[in-house]
Amino acid sequence: MSSPDVHNFTVSYRIGIINVTGYAGMEAARLLWKHPEARVVAATGRSLAGQRLGDAFPSLAIYGDFPITDEIQESVDVVFSSLPTAASAAACAPFVHAGVKVVDIAADFRLREPGAFEEWMSGGQPHPAPELLSEAVYGLPELNRERISAARLVANPGCYPAASLLALAPAVAAGLVTGQIVVDAKSGVSGAGRGSGGGFAYAEVNEDVSAYKIANHNHQPEIQQELAGLGEARAPRVTFVPHLVPMTRGIHATCYAPLVRAVTKAEVLEVYRDFYRSAPFTRVVDAPPHTKHTLGTNMCFVHPAVDERNGMLVAVGVLDNLGKGAAGQAIENMNLMLGIEQTAGLDLPAVYP
Amino acid sequence: MSSPDVHNFTVSYRIGIINVTGYAGMEAARLLWKHPEARVVAATGRSLAGQRLGDAFPSLAIYGDFPITDEIQESVDVVFSSLPTAASAAACAPFVHAGVKVVDIAADFRLREPGAFEEWMSGGQPHPAPELLSEAVYGLPELNRERISAARLVANPGCYPAASLLALAPAVAAGLVTGQIVVDAKSGVSGAGRGSGGGFAYAEVNEDVSAYKIANHNHQPEIQQELAGLGEARAPRVTFVPHLVPMTRGIHATCYAPLVRAVTKAEVLEVYRDFYRSAPFTRVVDAPPHTKHTLGTNMCFVHPAVDERNGMLVAVGVLDNLGKGAAGQAIENMNLMLGIEQTAGLDLPAVYP
Amino acid sequence: MSSPDVHNFTVSYRIGIINVTGYAGMEAARLLWKHPEARVVAATGRSLAGQRLGDAFPSLAIYGDFPITDEIQESVDVVFSSLPTAASAAACAPFVHAGVKVVDIAADFRLREPGAFEEWMSGGQPHPAPELLSEAVYGLPELNRERISAARLVANPGCYPAASLLALAPAVAAGLVTGQIVVDAKSGVSGAGRGSGGGFAYAEVNEDVSAYKIANHNHQPEIQQELAGLGEARAPRVTFVPHLVPMTRGIHATCYAPLVRAVTKAEVLEVYRDFYRSAPFTRVVDAPPHTKHTLGTNMCFVHPAVDERNGMLVAVGVLDNLGKGAAGQAIENMNLMLGIEQTAGLDLPAVYP
Amino acid sequence: MSSPDVHNFTVSYRIGIINVTGYAGMEAARLLWKHPEARVVAATGRSLAGQRLGDAFPSLAIYGDFPITDEIQESVDVVFSSLPTAASAAACAPFVHAGVKVVDIAADFRLREPGAFEEWMSGGQPHPAPELLSEAVYGLPELNRERISAARLVANPGCYPAASLLALAPAVAAGLVTGQIVVDAKSGVSGAGRGSGGGFAYAEVNEDVSAYKIANHNHQPEIQQELAGLGEARAPRVTFVPHLVPMTRGIHATCYAPLVRAVTKAEVLEVYRDFYRSAPFTRVVDAPPHTKHTLGTNMCFVHPAVDERNGMLVAVGVLDNLGKGAAGQAIENMNLMLGIEQTAGLDLPAVYP
Repeated sequence: MSSPDVHNFTVSYRIGIINVTGYAGMEAARLLWKHPEARVVAATGRSLAGQRLGDAFPSLAIYGDFPITDEIQESVDVVFSSLPTAASAAACAPFVHAGVKVVDIAADFRLREPGAFEEWMSGGQPHPAPELLSEAVYGLPELNRERISAARLVANPGCYPAASLLALAPAVAAGLVTGQIVVDAKSGVSGAGRGSGGGFAYAEVNEDVSAYKIANHNHQPEIQQELAGLGEARAPRVTFVPHLVPMTRGIHATCYAPLVRAVTKAEVLEVYRDFYRSAPFTRVVDAPPHTKHTLGTNMCFVHPAVDERNGMLVAVGVLDNLGKGAAGQAIENMNLMLGIEQTAGLDLPAVYP
Repeated sequence: MSSPDVHNFTVSYRIGIINVTGYAGMEAARLLWKHPEARVVAATGRSLAGQRLGDAFPSLAIYGDFPITDEIQESVDVVFSSLPTAASAAACAPFVHAGVKVVDIAADFRLREPGAFEEWMSGGQPHPAPELLSEAVYGLPELNRERISAARLVANPGCYPAASLLALAPAVAAGLVTGQIVVDAKSGVSGAGRGSGGGFAYAEVNEDVSAYKIANHNHQPEIQQELAGLGEARAPRVTFVPHLVPMTRGIHATCYAPLVRAVTKAEVLEVYRDFYRSAPFTRVVDAPPHTKHTLGTNMCFVHPAVDERNGMLVAVGVLDNLGKGAAGQAIENMNLMLGIEQTAGLDLPAVYP
Repeated sequence: MSSPDVHNFTVSYRIGIINVTGYAGMEAARLLWKHPEARVVAATGRSLAGQRLGDAFPSLAIYGDFPITDEIQESVDVVFSSLPTAASAAACAPFVHAGVKVVDIAADFRLREPGAFEEWMSGGQPHPAPELLSEAVYGLPELNRERISAARLVANPGCYPAASLLALAPAVAAGLVTGQIVVDAKSGVSGAGRGSGGGFAYAEVNEDVSAYKIANHNHQPEIQQELAGLGEARAPRVTFVPHLVPMTRGIHATCYAPLVRAVTKAEVLEVYRDFYRSAPFTRVVDAPPHTKHTLGTNMCFVHPAVDERNGMLVAVGVLDNLGKGAAGQAIENMNLMLGIEQTAGLDLPAVYP
Repeated sequence: MSSPDVHNFTVSYRIGIINVTGYAGMEAARLLWKHPEARVVAATGRSLAGQRLGDAFPSLAIYGDFPITDEIQESVDVVFSSLPTAASAAACAPFVHAGVKVVDIAADFRLREPGAFEEWMSGGQPHPAPELLSEAVYGLPELNRERISAARLVANPGCYPAASLLALAPAVAAGLVTGQIVVDAKSGVSGAGRGSGGGFAYAEVNEDVSAYKIANHNHQPEIQQELAGLGEARAPRVTFVPHLVPMTRGIHATCYAPLVRAVTKAEVLEVYRDFYRSAPFTRVVDAPPHTKHTLGTNMCFVHPAVDERNGMLVAVGVLDNLGKGAAGQAIENMNLMLGIEQTAGLDLPAVYP
């Protein structure tokens, strides 16, 4: 099939992907292939530099002889980075300073509180680009659409926070729930990344569920930080527990928040539908959604339920951790930053079954 | 290999399985094959009556020409029933009245409160054997060992409640937590039973997680009922949400309960280890356990963790839904009812990986 | 997101899908959503008629309120049918006679030999539209590109034959192998279709491999028929054995054919690369390919290997059974029949991992 | 539960496991726990030496504080080794020379032809104990029962050869087939061993089938060697292709051999049933078997089918690669070497579903 050079768009933004050899980078390359107004012109991946993208990753065979390089040397309009923590910030900073729009898919610019990076992410190592922390915009368009559109550096949300925040935001913003929240999240294994080691061997992950980093994952403060900006009340407190389940893609966040007053399911549904009325990728549904309904897309399905006997909101959010949880979200943020159609390149049905 | 007739034990109790064609019944037959003091002498399964057990289920080929029958016509010492709700109680009652010890693996005798059966289980149909409800003993030996030993009718716990109660009981009994509890549970697909229909087709369950019966599952009152008997405080309230995950066996219950005071992880571990000091099948571990570590056994691994920032106990219980969650538990109850070694036939390592 | 009405293409062919509620029909709807020159205007599915496509199948939520109907009542340019055997031919015939181009994704028009339909497919029932059998063109563009382009009725290949024929065709056409061929094929479970029953329950298919219809599957004569047209020698004889493996999508055909003379691996690779030089969707690779590298696409990867010790060609073909094995192939055939770009709507990277 | 010290058997052989930290070693420990006449007294695993077996592998929690050591220092009657190639022979030799019975689960003593070890297994490195090669007995009791019983060193079959040989042996021995045989085998991922690296990451193996080492796997000469001893005719030639499928345990070997004369399915079944009449673990069935029906056991199901149109025998063998394909087989061999009941410790139903 055709190589990217034969694309012949009227307008075409030039995109660089830092670390295309990670799953989020690969997914960005996959989705950008059909983007109507952007195309990948550079893709780095040090361990595979010099190889052709289509050879290194046969799923991207359509890219033909597109090269994987050490560094981005092309002129680019937007850069995505999916490097590991700390390395990502270091790689992003020069582009931001050079006026290139940057979406950091890593976690480096998400926590704005001083010291949070050291406490939760880097084991005490200082942030490589602290001067950019206050400028970075948290890239969840359902909450921050305007600020993203004006940003030059966007901190793409974590996959767990994306699902959790979309499940909880309408209720918190409406003041329906108290601030003592439990988020129990289940993730497919690709969330651990391509470089992850033996803990994710097939024979040991298959037919198994386990929790990890109980109340100790850096997505816990990320969720708290973003919920704090939503309501009038004091900042919510979140107990967050992630679980690994035997599937490749998908996040299922089940969120529990005590209701401050009796509400009906219909009333809650209405609050949620209002909140997301203009959000193209977040769909409120009235039955428990399936992670698989989002596979390969930028969709998030949200289902707010009520345990009336116990006065508890149970809000479910599901998405593809590489879609709305990473690369899809990054492209949506890019679209906003470039001022083009928010859904460009992302208006896709899910791969099913 | 040898047919069951060639077993030649000094003492051998005679067991009947009602509905050996369900997964719990099949698992009981599997485990009883090697039980040192009991053997299956009758196994019913109406849809397959007349067939040989080893032909109908090649995994039980070792049973050779053992017949599946319509009814139990042999003299038996103990009966297990794993029929569907309501049918099970109707089938169990005559045996109880005839002096045969009965373990009901179905849910019919679990909820003791009048009206609970109609409200949660039968859609309003009356209980087929209400006269036995008050006599039935809830069959979780970690809580009820003495009463089970003296019982003639045991209500075997549900798979979700077994994991949840074992995760929560020590903390509730010690008064460490308040009564507003969240139980987020994940189950393999075999929990839905062999007869379950198209909602569990491989292509749709694979690579998918979804919640179901949010705060509306009959295991919610079952958990509440049994927790109520443990502590001094007012009865706990439980919000229970089950999830289906793509694996065959395994339950992972993640339980969240606000702590009434600051406690250290070490202190909680000590409380749990004390509580289960004489429980042969419940093992307290200090890292998050994996469902797969229990596969094929009657083990439950319990891990109490503490979210110190939020004053929340996070207690995890994992087990095999067909083991400690059904047939293994039933055999443990049988052992107690017969006055033989509690671990007889169940002292097995797990199948791993 | 936008409903299909807002598409605003310069040219847009109107497509009808008969039985959108089967997996092949759903996949056709998924792929056509982004087709640059065609759009779905009608989709039938009797069991769900009256429902909205996006509600019935949340993976197609993007279709919004597009209705599922009983019959195609819109004017259409092309019809796809994925009804079960016999029903499909009956549904296709009126459209062919009315001048609508038809791609039958079912098996009804594949076997041209008189009596083959009755022998292999219908249990003796006569073909519903025998007058069209001689006209139907077997829809594998790598073999029949010109005839497909001129056809008004295309018999879309079976998923197993597509992979097997693409793996074998170059060697057979070059006269490299004798006619006594073994095809050992492995399929994901979605190949059994959405309507398939209890034999495909998750708990029983998961962690299992089994063969079925050994040398008795109707894809055996289909492969033989198409190979027969390729070489000079007498018609090949094929022993075909399909296997079910625990995954949702994917076909892996491993084909064994005795070589008529000693050839090197390099020589065979050259023969294969020549054969597929102008085929946009069949890629010859020099290492064993993975089914997963084709997920969601119309690609087939072919790898010819040589067992030099035994003079045996081992040719592997992998594809997505719903892509190049069904709906993707159907759209490629449609493109040829309409005279538009062969790759239109199908130039996609694979979903990975 | 009880630690191994409390076992109190009349007779109890003392077993040492070299490399209990591999999957085959772990499975041997699992099965031996309930063996009526043998018990593990030493278990090595250098990377985990000093740890307790029940801590290192929670599935073996029942072993309590049983230590993993560097070397076997206890007096033992039988040693199992599941070290990697070459390391295993080196570790086994001293025990054989000291008069301890040894079952080598690794491949080191399987190929008897001079030079075969260097050609197929070690990349040219010489065999560490060539003096034992001629003495080692190939440990498939269905073929070699008497010689195994008298052996002091048994070469345990590979998992693929075990399934393939059991599927083919009766037909080859009866002279029903010619010598040009194809074996297409499918394996679960645990066959690659616990130490295997990133090629078996969950996210990449899941939802994928691929072939590997096409006609280049060292199980090809192993199958040929053992078939050669069976029939009168010239030695069979085998083309062997292994495939990786997304499951943890299980081998499915589909074997294709041209028939030398027309035979009915009933006739072939009779030949097979005769051949295995006294084999306790190989069961001939008249429908395609499922790998899952053998999970956790030492069973092999064999199904001979006939493609009458093409004069081809299609013989299927399925087993658990860690059972009859490794540790179960090793224990069966041990039983024979010790002169105790062949089925001791192995008379188990399968874990299903």
